Amino acid sequence: MVRDEIPTPALLLDLEAFEANVTTMAGFVAARGKGFRPHGKTHKCPEIARRLVAAGAVGSCTARLSEAEVFAAHGIPGLLVTTAVVGPHKAARAAALSATAPDTIFVADDADAVRALDAAASRQDTPMLVAVDLYFGRTGVPPGEPARDLARVIASCRHLRFAGLQSYDAAASHTHGYAARRARTTGTMAQAVATRQLIEADGLACPMVSAGSTGSYRFDAEIDGITELQPGSFIFMDVDYAKIGGADGRDAYTDFRTALSVVTTVISALGDDAIVDGGFKAFATDRAFGPEPIGEPGLTYTWAGDEHGRLDLRQAARRLKVGDRVAFRVPHCDPTVNLYDELHVLRGDLVEDVWPIAARGKSQ
Amino acid sequence: MVRDEIPTPALLLDLEAFEANVTTMAGFVAARGKGFRPHGKTHKCPEIARRLVAAGAVGSCTARLSEAEVFAAHGIPGLLVTTAVVGPHKAARAAALSATAPDTIFVADDADAVRALDAAASRQDTPMLVAVDLYFGRTGVPPGEPARDLARVIASCRHLRFAGLQSYDAAASHTHGYAARRARTTGTMAQAVATRQLIEADGLACPMVSAGSTGSYRFDAEIDGITELQPGSFIFMDVDYAKIGGADGRDAYTDFRTALSVVTTVISALGDDAIVDGGFKAFATDRAFGPEPIGEPGLTYTWAGDEHGRLDLRQAARRLKVGDRVAFRVPHCDPTVNLYDELHVLRGDLVEDVWPIAARGKSQ
Repeated sequence: MVRDEIPTPALLLDLEAFEANVTTMAGFVAARGKGFRPHGKTHKCPEIARRLVAAGAVGSCTARLSEAEVFAAHGIPGLLVTTAVVGPHKAARAAALSATAPDTIFVADDADAVRALDAAASRQDTPMLVAVDLYFGRTGVPPGEPARDLARVIASCRHLRFAGLQSYDAAASHTHGYAARRARTTGTMAQAVATRQLIEADGLACPMVSAGSTGSYRFDAEIDGITELQPGSFIFMDVDYAKIGGADGRDAYTDFRTALSVVTTVISALGDDAIVDGGFKAFATDRAFGPEPIGEPGLTYTWAGDEHGRLDLRQAARRLKVGDRVAFRVPHCDPTVNLYDELHVLRGDLVEDVWPIAARGKSQ
Repeated sequence: MVRDEIPTPALLLDLEAFEANVTTMAGFVAARGKGFRPHGKTHKCPEIARRLVAAGAVGSCTARLSEAEVFAAHGIPGLLVTTAVVGPHKAARAAALSATAPDTIFVADDADAVRALDAAASRQDTPMLVAVDLYFGRTGVPPGEPARDLARVIASCRHLRFAGLQSYDAAASHTHGYAARRARTTGTMAQAVATRQLIEADGLACPMVSAGSTGSYRFDAEIDGITELQPGSFIFMDVDYAKIGGADGRDAYTDFRTALSVVTTVISALGDDAIVDGGFKAFATDRAFGPEPIGEPGLTYTWAGDEHGRLDLRQAARRLKVGDRVAFRVPHCDPTVNLYDELHVLRGDLVEDVWPIAARGKSQ
């Protein structure tokens, strides 16, 4: 199959750009002696997780238990479930996962949830991190003494082993501008490192501090006390991350190449508009901006419903007609990937493979 | 399984409300002598399509060819693919579908696409509608002579049979206020009916005019010349449709009950916020408003990323803690359903069944 035969709308991966992105990130992290556990919530694709491990990753993060179950079933090692497991039924599933994939690491920010997981676990030594909240106010306990106190709770549990800290600052990742981003992540990560020191001064080993993102990896990888990085979007890139500002002071963030796109077909053309077969079901809509046409100067996309997008042809370099194809950079990669069952993998215009997004929809 | 054992985030169907909605719509349409072909793009669920047929539907609309393929494989009769089939590969698939499900109706707004489908078809008598554009400017040809001319093209094709018109006015469906909505849909549908008359005056039978939506069904069902209705959202309802204004002049549209919800779990609680495990991957984000908590006075939801939502507890009637469950009305039902693989079907608090959303992600 070649590019123009793929039924649209479809999710495409440019394999050359993907491989370059993986090489760039894996090399950068390895050169600084940090562990590399990229985030699987971005791709939900066991084949990508496998390739990242082949490139040096110690394993894969997953946002959710159900994602980790899929990855474990595909033989991906070193899983880290970055969202707390809550409730008796999920605690039982986490225990079952831990029994089959004993290096799976869990995360907590609530003492009762820790005790519930301990009660459900059947084996000793299940590793667990304390999630530290770094200014973002979403999940995690405050750094310092609250984190130390929760570490003590974990260490006191019969089936759990305190393994360290998770210190993700989602707002740092998207802070606009290189210098501002460095300042923000350096400040927040210093609190994580200080918390690690506080816990170790308390007599508890704190071997791991997992941090980092596609936006902050350059800075986080330079910080003593951060032990591993969990970036996700760098493999694909999207319109959102491309705007955060680069090392050269310009608006464009060019550390990684755009490897992900969605291709659509013009299904109606009347007057100055062309209508493509990609709308709210083809692209995630959580950002303030829409998809960006690739290689189509003067063309702009606006949403036109669940199934449709509208292209304004008035400034377009070519006059689109019914049957023409238009590809787009996606506004936000993670929730866009979550709309598709498979990734069409291209080298040039040749479809080299189709990779199942096996954990798509696994949000539980 | 009972309600509180369902792993979250999960999509729930209140069976009693769903059945009431189906009875209301099917009865209203039947009493006015119209056909009833509800839109499957809303639910993508063969079991729901089957129940609608049992309630009197002549079949099911689908937005896309790939949805129709799934419904046909599940034995759903009377399919109408409401988006034009474009390109040689999809034309071949449409021909294959038509060979196995010969009552499947296609739609077109472009003469070249019509001829491509004719060339691909292997059997005579494939029914095809002309999509008429009624002010919305998305897909469809203008009413009147352009629609008549395309009808002639279809009628001249060896393998196709001109079956009538599709006249969907998406903007009429969501026009706010009962009187304004009636005025808009009555005006646009009059053009569809006039186009039907023009075509028949030209000597071509135009047996079918498919129109209508959850917002406009009351008015469209009263119009002579409209032969069948294709509403979708009435089975579920959402925050969006609940705002369009009712027959009593109030803002709330109460013709149908809320049957669809998403249930989440509080996974973190600190200070005045509770964080639930439902974000951009649990709810469609294409509307300007977010999910609405059900039965939780004073609680408001704001987006907190791909995996999280934030609840402000300051005005809340109960103090939520980690492990508590909160259910929500969804902002927009169709693209939310498209995020889930299955629907947990509840009668009261008992999970009576789990229905696969077999056409989820079938946007091709």
